[in-house]
Amino acid sequence: MVEFEGLIILEPAGKYTRHVLKVNKVYAVEKTPYQEIAFVEIEGFGKALVIDNFIQSTEADEHIYHELLVQPAMALHPKPEKVLIIGGGEGATLREVLKHSTVKRAVMVDIDRDVVEFSKKYLEVMHKGSFHDPRAEVVIMDGLVYVEKASERDFDVVILDLTDPYAGPAAKPLYSYEFYSKLKNIMKRDGVLVTQAGSSYFYTQEYLYVKENLSRAFKYIGEYWTWIPSFAVNVNFIIASDAYNPLELEPDEFDKRMRERGVKNVYIDGRRFKGLILVGVIYPRGFTPQ
Amino acid sequence: MVEFEGLIILEPAGKYTRHVLKVNKVYAVEKTPYQEIAFVEIEGFGKALVIDNFIQSTEADEHIYHELLVQPAMALHPKPEKVLIIGGGEGATLREVLKHSTVKRAVMVDIDRDVVEFSKKYLEVMHKGSFHDPRAEVVIMDGLVYVEKASERDFDVVILDLTDPYAGPAAKPLYSYEFYSKLKNIMKRDGVLVTQAGSSYFYTQEYLYVKENLSRAFKYIGEYWTWIPSFAVNVNFIIASDAYNPLELEPDEFDKRMRERGVKNVYIDGRRFKGLILVGVIYPRGFTPQ
Amino acid sequence: MVEFEGLIILEPAGKYTRHVLKVNKVYAVEKTPYQEIAFVEIEGFGKALVIDNFIQSTEADEHIYHELLVQPAMALHPKPEKVLIIGGGEGATLREVLKHSTVKRAVMVDIDRDVVEFSKKYLEVMHKGSFHDPRAEVVIMDGLVYVEKASERDFDVVILDLTDPYAGPAAKPLYSYEFYSKLKNIMKRDGVLVTQAGSSYFYTQEYLYVKENLSRAFKYIGEYWTWIPSFAVNVNFIIASDAYNPLELEPDEFDKRMRERGVKNVYIDGRRFKGLILVGVIYPRGFTPQ
Amino acid sequence: MVEFEGLIILEPAGKYTRHVLKVNKVYAVEKTPYQEIAFVEIEGFGKALVIDNFIQSTEADEHIYHELLVQPAMALHPKPEKVLIIGGGEGATLREVLKHSTVKRAVMVDIDRDVVEFSKKYLEVMHKGSFHDPRAEVVIMDGLVYVEKASERDFDVVILDLTDPYAGPAAKPLYSYEFYSKLKNIMKRDGVLVTQAGSSYFYTQEYLYVKENLSRAFKYIGEYWTWIPSFAVNVNFIIASDAYNPLELEPDEFDKRMRERGVKNVYIDGRRFKGLILVGVIYPRGFTPQ
Repeated sequence: MVEFEGLIILEPAGKYTRHVLKVNKVYAVEKTPYQEIAFVEIEGFGKALVIDNFIQSTEADEHIYHELLVQPAMALHPKPEKVLIIGGGEGATLREVLKHSTVKRAVMVDIDRDVVEFSKKYLEVMHKGSFHDPRAEVVIMDGLVYVEKASERDFDVVILDLTDPYAGPAAKPLYSYEFYSKLKNIMKRDGVLVTQAGSSYFYTQEYLYVKENLSRAFKYIGEYWTWIPSFAVNVNFIIASDAYNPLELEPDEFDKRMRERGVKNVYIDGRRFKGLILVGVIYPRGFTPQ
Repeated sequence: MVEFEGLIILEPAGKYTRHVLKVNKVYAVEKTPYQEIAFVEIEGFGKALVIDNFIQSTEADEHIYHELLVQPAMALHPKPEKVLIIGGGEGATLREVLKHSTVKRAVMVDIDRDVVEFSKKYLEVMHKGSFHDPRAEVVIMDGLVYVEKASERDFDVVILDLTDPYAGPAAKPLYSYEFYSKLKNIMKRDGVLVTQAGSSYFYTQEYLYVKENLSRAFKYIGEYWTWIPSFAVNVNFIIASDAYNPLELEPDEFDKRMRERGVKNVYIDGRRFKGLILVGVIYPRGFTPQ
Repeated sequence: MVEFEGLIILEPAGKYTRHVLKVNKVYAVEKTPYQEIAFVEIEGFGKALVIDNFIQSTEADEHIYHELLVQPAMALHPKPEKVLIIGGGEGATLREVLKHSTVKRAVMVDIDRDVVEFSKKYLEVMHKGSFHDPRAEVVIMDGLVYVEKASERDFDVVILDLTDPYAGPAAKPLYSYEFYSKLKNIMKRDGVLVTQAGSSYFYTQEYLYVKENLSRAFKYIGEYWTWIPSFAVNVNFIIASDAYNPLELEPDEFDKRMRERGVKNVYIDGRRFKGLILVGVIYPRGFTPQ
Repeated sequence: MVEFEGLIILEPAGKYTRHVLKVNKVYAVEKTPYQEIAFVEIEGFGKALVIDNFIQSTEADEHIYHELLVQPAMALHPKPEKVLIIGGGEGATLREVLKHSTVKRAVMVDIDRDVVEFSKKYLEVMHKGSFHDPRAEVVIMDGLVYVEKASERDFDVVILDLTDPYAGPAAKPLYSYEFYSKLKNIMKRDGVLVTQAGSSYFYTQEYLYVKENLSRAFKYIGEYWTWIPSFAVNVNFIIASDAYNPLELEPDEFDKRMRERGVKNVYIDGRRFKGLILVGVIYPRGFTPQ
């Protein structure tokens, strides 16, 4: 039985509740120019990154989030060579991308140098040295600015690992139609984009905002979600492409592509992704999307 | 923003954390001979039943739990006429069963008269009058005893809506091979059984205990899980039968059976069930089931 | 070790912290026209009254508060026969007043009938039957109105057992110079008045407001405070009179008066009151009253 | 209104409750060989030292604790020149001792080098440079061992600033009759000793253990207590001497000694100490000391 005394994280889980996690160790707590970050060890979950009081990643379960964010989009693309990640400071999204032997270049753009530097120092268990992979480049820059100015315009896959769409006014432009349009400009025509999309159950309007913008910008979208144990709530993802329909990605093809590219996952596989995409979205009772 | 002051429920969510819910109203808090029960109204979730500090059902999201517990088992059976429910005191499981026009008789056995009586009084929003349906019979009795003595031995579907398998020594016999064997004795040969099975992520050993016992007792089993918002954690279900394979229940057949029996659901449908059963189980990182 | 699960009270103790108390039993939780009230049993403190999320009185320690509120003012007066209490719905203030054999009549004015009725029902341990003492009269009325209209104008002692001075705009008039002036109009010329005065440490300005108004209205004032275990914070009291100086009430005289009037106290006596009045007030560091 | 999200300290205040404090900044959190220590900034209380989940000292209110621990004992002695402090790692007790111009030598013995070193670094606001005063010597050693081996045997005042008497088996010897006897051996015959003594309200037996041992070891004892805002509970102190009776220390003499020795205090003065010693002890209801 966990003794809830001493240092605790009180996380605003969902809209109506709080989640209480016990902190066993503190590596660093800092106010950066962009956010408050904490690198801590949490009872039952191990090393963790917390931003603005929200658990971002924990050693025990970040694989669920990061595999679900990255692998379906990568699997949907027949040969992802150039990948752009926006956000993802702890390096685990980068790690997932670099698993693919097809990848020749992965650009990761994060606004907050401190997140990246502290992650390098304290979260080796997450980035697994990805920052030193010769295929990886880390750019410290506002994602909005990067997309505006990028000289490279041939990304196969774009992965948006961003603050939640309900996390305040700074978050909204990162889920706007305009942003998605600009991202398309630096993607190949058959590119695939994926974004985490907050919590459709608790933040339905914010989720629909993301969904509608992606639906407008791309021919195909696919919605899926899961529960992340350390978050206490669900997380949604939306995958989008003009060329490939995520609903048509069959388990065998998913698994074959993983196998061919030397990718080993803990949680996701073709069958499970098919399941998730069939499950689709979860809305609060009484909500009927048009 | 919810102001966390005054009456609160501190729920031992998962194994390592607590979930903080705000209580807006208290209808009744009682120690019964079996457990501590509370009927309250919770911020963001409405009316709720709490047993031994665990949220059991809330107005906002009990449909997710109860539809997932009941409807796949009912859908798997081609013509469920006699249904046995063990547990389920708030009457929502009974409500789901009675949705089916095929059902001629539903016996609900709950050990705790107080849960049933208080639910009748305070949780109309859940039982929706099911207790007064002429097809329903409520028996106040220990489920273990009922199964031993039952004169009716022709149930088509058995639904186990019980306390969690990790909820202490009293829970264990309700998930034992012996109990499942005795249940088979009062089921038709093509009967379908379903049980909630706790949380495979946090209580893996307890989940496997249930799974192994069901696998031994029945030819087919099907595993699925979901996140319940007010629980903060995941809930697993296992469906079992000697006659019907839950993995082969196709979305169209599921939806057709619902349609023919006049069943309307909020969350579950054939496609979503197919998805859930493909997703299967969630285990903690590093755990590899044999 | 207390297990903090299930029903909890999260009390806004002081200005910056919360106090977590475990609820073992709920008798009643109601929204009255004036406030939210809860009658509960609290781990380590027994039966308790909670108003608007603040602990008011608990079985274990209410004697500290009520003796300190009532007995010094009663002791200061040489022969208290008529006593007016404003507030004090749970009846413990009345109980303390009625201990004095000199008292012929005690009028208790509380705005909230529900507090009084529920207290009669659930808090016998506090009121000890005082409501049925033939010397007692309970008037359900706004204290401000009562004081305006009172036909009796010869109270020896007035005891203000009111909501905290920082508890919102409704509280302020009850601590105003105008109110004290009107109270003087219904007191004998050698009357004694006492009020609880919030927390001088956390709510310094609100405390000074009370103190200044009493200083303007009366010739003598005496300040004292104590810590109440279930409050987690300190509570201040101010005693005021035109005739008697509380600083000059010597321990022997205090004890003699108690003895002569048949009063037995648990905590307060002449020596302790002398000590408290010498200790005086506690202000936050850096605050210097003029 | 404080928003309770993010890093929190959940302090086991008293025996039955928890105190929730908001952490605004973390300087260091370490497991030393003896204890877990945290140097943090707490909402409303400023910089703070936390040991084993208990608040020890905060910027806002440590003066109440440290003045009450140190100044009465110093005032009781007519000319304190040599002072021994056991515990008191954050240096605030030392600061209070060094205020006295009579003091020629102050030896501070703390078992935990880390507490002292981190305090030097982060708690200048508390020690105010006392560690560098030429009259001060800091010895890193178990107090029990120091007292056994001390070559200096002429201390005028001994100040015990130790972990609470209810803080586990390691604490008990530090409050034993044997320890007090050994301390007498290294004190002058007219020496004065003072110890903090936990919380007589919540830990009555442990408090009485201290009191009885001191009563056996010394001719005079004086008991007093106060509430410390950041602790949420009361703290007791016991002062002991064979030569001077703390009950006979009159306010004027107290203030005169402070004045002559150039001591300026924030909270304590002669009148307030007289008050505190008259108030004496607080016990739980129903407890009657013999």
